[in-house]
Amino acid sequence: MSHTRALASFLAELAYEHIPASVLDRTEELFLDWMGSALASQGAHPSPLFERYAEMMGPGEGPSGILTNGKGTSAYFAALVNAAASHLVEQDDLHNSSVLHPATVVFPAALAAVEEGGYTGRELLLASIAGYEAGIRIGEFLGRSHYRIFHTTATVGTLAAAIAVGKLFRFDQEQFLNLLGNAGTQAAGLWEFLRDAADSKQLHTAKAAADGLLAAYMTREGLTGARNILEGPQGIAAGMSTDANPARLADRLGSRWALTETSFKFHASCRHTHPAADALLELMQRENLVHSHVAGVVAHVHQGAIDVLGRVVIPQTVHQAKFHMGTVLGLIAVYGKAGLTEFHSYALADPAVKAFGEKVEMVLSPEVDDAYPARWLGRITVTTTDGRVLHAAIDEPKGDPGNTLSRPELEDKFRRLIDFSGARTPDQGEDLIQAVWSIRDRSDLSILTRC
Amino acid sequence: MSHTRALASFLAELAYEHIPASVLDRTEELFLDWMGSALASQGAHPSPLFERYAEMMGPGEGPSGILTNGKGTSAYFAALVNAAASHLVEQDDLHNSSVLHPATVVFPAALAAVEEGGYTGRELLLASIAGYEAGIRIGEFLGRSHYRIFHTTATVGTLAAAIAVGKLFRFDQEQFLNLLGNAGTQAAGLWEFLRDAADSKQLHTAKAAADGLLAAYMTREGLTGARNILEGPQGIAAGMSTDANPARLADRLGSRWALTETSFKFHASCRHTHPAADALLELMQRENLVHSHVAGVVAHVHQGAIDVLGRVVIPQTVHQAKFHMGTVLGLIAVYGKAGLTEFHSYALADPAVKAFGEKVEMVLSPEVDDAYPARWLGRITVTTTDGRVLHAAIDEPKGDPGNTLSRPELEDKFRRLIDFSGARTPDQGEDLIQAVWSIRDRSDLSILTRC
Repeated sequence: MSHTRALASFLAELAYEHIPASVLDRTEELFLDWMGSALASQGAHPSPLFERYAEMMGPGEGPSGILTNGKGTSAYFAALVNAAASHLVEQDDLHNSSVLHPATVVFPAALAAVEEGGYTGRELLLASIAGYEAGIRIGEFLGRSHYRIFHTTATVGTLAAAIAVGKLFRFDQEQFLNLLGNAGTQAAGLWEFLRDAADSKQLHTAKAAADGLLAAYMTREGLTGARNILEGPQGIAAGMSTDANPARLADRLGSRWALTETSFKFHASCRHTHPAADALLELMQRENLVHSHVAGVVAHVHQGAIDVLGRVVIPQTVHQAKFHMGTVLGLIAVYGKAGLTEFHSYALADPAVKAFGEKVEMVLSPEVDDAYPARWLGRITVTTTDGRVLHAAIDEPKGDPGNTLSRPELEDKFRRLIDFSGARTPDQGEDLIQAVWSIRDRSDLSILTRC
Repeated sequence: MSHTRALASFLAELAYEHIPASVLDRTEELFLDWMGSALASQGAHPSPLFERYAEMMGPGEGPSGILTNGKGTSAYFAALVNAAASHLVEQDDLHNSSVLHPATVVFPAALAAVEEGGYTGRELLLASIAGYEAGIRIGEFLGRSHYRIFHTTATVGTLAAAIAVGKLFRFDQEQFLNLLGNAGTQAAGLWEFLRDAADSKQLHTAKAAADGLLAAYMTREGLTGARNILEGPQGIAAGMSTDANPARLADRLGSRWALTETSFKFHASCRHTHPAADALLELMQRENLVHSHVAGVVAHVHQGAIDVLGRVVIPQTVHQAKFHMGTVLGLIAVYGKAGLTEFHSYALADPAVKAFGEKVEMVLSPEVDDAYPARWLGRITVTTTDGRVLHAAIDEPKGDPGNTLSRPELEDKFRRLIDFSGARTPDQGEDLIQAVWSIRDRSDLSILTRC
């Protein structure tokens, strides 16, 4: 368990002063992006179900805020509801090679515990960075075999959330080992729900954040856990992976900042559609095409895209449309973008989008598949109505680290997200943006969750 | 998924009137036995940690009672704390062929929801029976490969607890399918903690009962789940078993009452020690031996006993002593019993027990191993100081269905359990016994949890 020990030691010793400014900057950007995702889902099923559950089972008031209804509750329920909300509109961040969505599990747990314990903005940043760095490495450790059956953001998310809160509590190496045990033995979440388009995606992130937080609070109280839950013979990898690589757990700790490899979502669709969407957009702009010029589209994709997107043949709901390559490319072709507004107004309603979608085909590309999941390549072939065959390739989809969103672009995305749901007024939105950009100097963070 | 459908249909249609009187009787007996197990752990680590967590994260009062401190809280936290408490002193029930401890997950969830919703004693019995019948079959379905890595009472326990509460809510077949999805995708719990004698066993049952209850409440609110979580290609069996047998899910539903196959624990030790303990007791009584006559003992056991018990070489704690064959047989030889009092007063302190323990060896027996887990055979060989070699065999350990505990024996066990911790006075204990024996005629069950 030398790799687990190295990871625990790194987590115990990590200090705010060690962290490069660029990492702190990116953490603030990821945090604003996360808040927008959570606020955008106000009122959207199944978000209110989690709010009602918190009201039924939790205290009537408390130190930790629920973003979508502005109410105070205990840290456990704030983490639960905010995590459910932030994984709903498909706008939250993604780390490519771990296939982990870190924000939706790390930030809800960290923020809820920060509010409960009166921690500062710097402590929130440090805790969140610990959660990202460890969570991403644990996701990489469990490998592709894990992701085939298990929703990594649910399973690894429990550990990532726990670690963030454990860092807030200034755990030492021993406590981090116990924490990994207490969080890891709760790790759960199966992909089976995709077949039925069931609501489990939000249940998974809700439970990951809340269970991780529970693990940290109980570890602080003295609950001991398995000290080798990651690498042990009856641990997570033994039970839930066939290609685990323990060396990934401690990969360049302190020199590689995995958090900065995290991608922002530009389009409001499943991430597996983004490379093709960007390639199509580039091709249509380059060739000055409009959608009626297109006779056929082939998206050359990795197997994972076919596995996840192939289930949706004719989308019946907006959520399914976000997992339908034809609809996503149809919105790009007709409207030039595939944001939340386009999905909700046009994805199912516009015959031109539907007609374009019917011209789209996904084909497995060995080149794209070999690069995945480290790189998500976009390769597209368009046949035009006048018989031309055109190609486009993009190597870094919009939002990836090498093609990231600037602060103005992120602010714009945030404004669109809160406008979409009406969860905050434009003025409140500007206040939130300024609060996040100054988070490292703030000792009181209550502005973030109360409206 | 025909087997899952059959199970869901059975659960939806099961009515109190269908249940034989002997099954109702046994359910009351299992319930009393469960309450004793929970009350016995008042004050014992880690039980108070869960009480403190409930106080920190839950409401200050509520309709559902915590057995060990008499406080009211929400159903979620009552289920959490009572489930942790009832799996601590190693006195709760066990179903052999599923290797599931049903009481510690089913009753806490069902009772908490009964109190929250004002249900009757009959509804509690019906709900609990549904949880036992389904949970046992799901445990059998997942097979021995599952139990090798996963703590079945944790994983399957989440489903069993959910089903009990779902039955209370009178779910139809569709709701039960969604409920299985919502509970199954939360199923977690790894054996890795055994290596460190960590506190995860209680965390597992706490989370199973509470998560199962959460699944039922959220399903009632409208949260949809994977409809084929048990048998589907990205479901529990696909991810967490290599020898799953779907036919077990619907095995003789309505004619085989699996609940009545559940064993009571007579000794206060790990169930894997019981067959040998009973065989040794029989041999010593038959031969009129005292412990000083014994030169050596061989316990002929199944592989599972070696896997679980073999880790403890020299017990350092009372809890470890319960997992140490030598100590258990030492208490039997010296004191004629291995109850909670013997463990706490003598297991570590009496040199005669330790000396006897050092003469004990476990040896794998193909006969015992082949019978397991359907039958837990006890086979023992004793060499005496005067050179005799003696054998004893028992085929049904005390507490198994064919050698069960009578109501007076269960009452006596209950009295000893509450006396051990002092959680209730003797008079309160008698009131509780009478309340449980009349549970099917009670509409108000608040006497059970308040002291």
